[in-house]
Amino acid sequence: MLTFVGLGLYDEDSITREGAAAIAEADAVFAECYTSKLLGATVDDLESHHGVEIDVRDRAGVEQTPEPILDAATDGDAVFLTAGDTMIATTHVDLRLRAADRGIETRIVHGVTAQAAASSLTGLQNYRFGPATTLPFPDAHAVDGLPASVTNTVDENAERGLHTLVFLDIKAADDRYMSADRAASLLAGEYADRLGVAVARAGSPDPVVAADSIDALAARSFGEPLHLLVIPGALHSMEADALATFADAPEELLPSE
Amino acid sequence: MLTFVGLGLYDEDSITREGAAAIAEADAVFAECYTSKLLGATVDDLESHHGVEIDVRDRAGVEQTPEPILDAATDGDAVFLTAGDTMIATTHVDLRLRAADRGIETRIVHGVTAQAAASSLTGLQNYRFGPATTLPFPDAHAVDGLPASVTNTVDENAERGLHTLVFLDIKAADDRYMSADRAASLLAGEYADRLGVAVARAGSPDPVVAADSIDALAARSFGEPLHLLVIPGALHSMEADALATFADAPEELLPSE
Repeated sequence: MLTFVGLGLYDEDSITREGAAAIAEADAVFAECYTSKLLGATVDDLESHHGVEIDVRDRAGVEQTPEPILDAATDGDAVFLTAGDTMIATTHVDLRLRAADRGIETRIVHGVTAQAAASSLTGLQNYRFGPATTLPFPDAHAVDGLPASVTNTVDENAERGLHTLVFLDIKAADDRYMSADRAASLLAGEYADRLGVAVARAGSPDPVVAADSIDALAARSFGEPLHLLVIPGALHSMEADALATFADAPEELLPSE
Repeated sequence: MLTFVGLGLYDEDSITREGAAAIAEADAVFAECYTSKLLGATVDDLESHHGVEIDVRDRAGVEQTPEPILDAATDGDAVFLTAGDTMIATTHVDLRLRAADRGIETRIVHGVTAQAAASSLTGLQNYRFGPATTLPFPDAHAVDGLPASVTNTVDENAERGLHTLVFLDIKAADDRYMSADRAASLLAGEYADRLGVAVARAGSPDPVVAADSIDALAARSFGEPLHLLVIPGALHSMEADALATFADAPEELLPSE
């Protein structure tokens, strides 16, 4: 059996009780830290917290040589840990498909997602978000300015009045995390006067939620990673109230009642 | 302090360790079960599991007379429990705004959402979902046939190639939960030949994920609630593989390679 467990967003307490039980009962525990990782707990912290050894696999160790994981799941109960929920990255779906190909039963123990946290913390309603997009570091894509994947998503969502969650690039292997102010400075070329909401350390005990024009957000700073940015679409009055109350949104950027 | 805690999707083990700690440390614990509820644990189960008394508030007890909750949060640490993540329902945002109006500090401990589970369990990529919609019981809305809120969302998502998560109506106070087959029969008027994916008991130890034409799903049954339905948009090849492997999608309804 191969059980995929989502660790949630921040530290060793972000996991569900079901996930912790799966780790405790496992014969072998693996993790990947290249698509995302916890910022509030190291792998050592997780090992001592759960009283297990964790075999951290790099990208090649999951995508090219998954055999040790699949062998462990054939011989006994193996757990595969990822930050957030599992299956967010296609690499996890691929591993699950390989397991199924070998006749290994799989199971998923869900974790809290950044999407859920961004909606809850900002007060922007979940069902009013369009698809999310990811803003890459400028050195990670070929074109000057913003990639079309970002502007198309933001613009198409805005046309429908929908909010856009912008994931900020993570190079977890190099400990590089794009900050919300950096993201806002990149987005300012297209969206300088638009309302944006920076969300820092979602899922931690001290999240920061700050609403301002994209231009103004670019000049602020929000502390330790991970950061997210939301570009709201049309705002319902309770959403506007929440942004004013919990994110100090300037009145002139909110719809007048 | 008023701490909003999401219980996650299914039973007493669906909560995060952080959420369980917040309950253990609270001076008073409240819950609402009218927007959604856990199907795998009763309030009694939660009380005995966490060793606390839980004051279950009905809609009027949250929206019209929230004073006992706000008073407890003024005098000490109060926790307010909801199924899934918190803040999914506007009634929770409203309560948080009322607390802020009274100068009460608020905190959010996130829970796993049905959105995250629907994406992980089906293998449909998270960032390729458009906004979700809710299919109401026919006796709960005025028009014949499907409400425009449903068809507009499905159709606009489909135009962009996006998947749609369809939440199925819950009348938790009356223990009425729309089944995926019932939902499919309602949707068949518009979408009979389209691919649909039924997801039953997401977050439980025995979730069912079944892909078939909407028409065919209407003739099947998926056991105990809660159910969800997904109407996929354009499928990437790994998404198609996942639906074939984990949801037995008929080959003729998947894109040819």
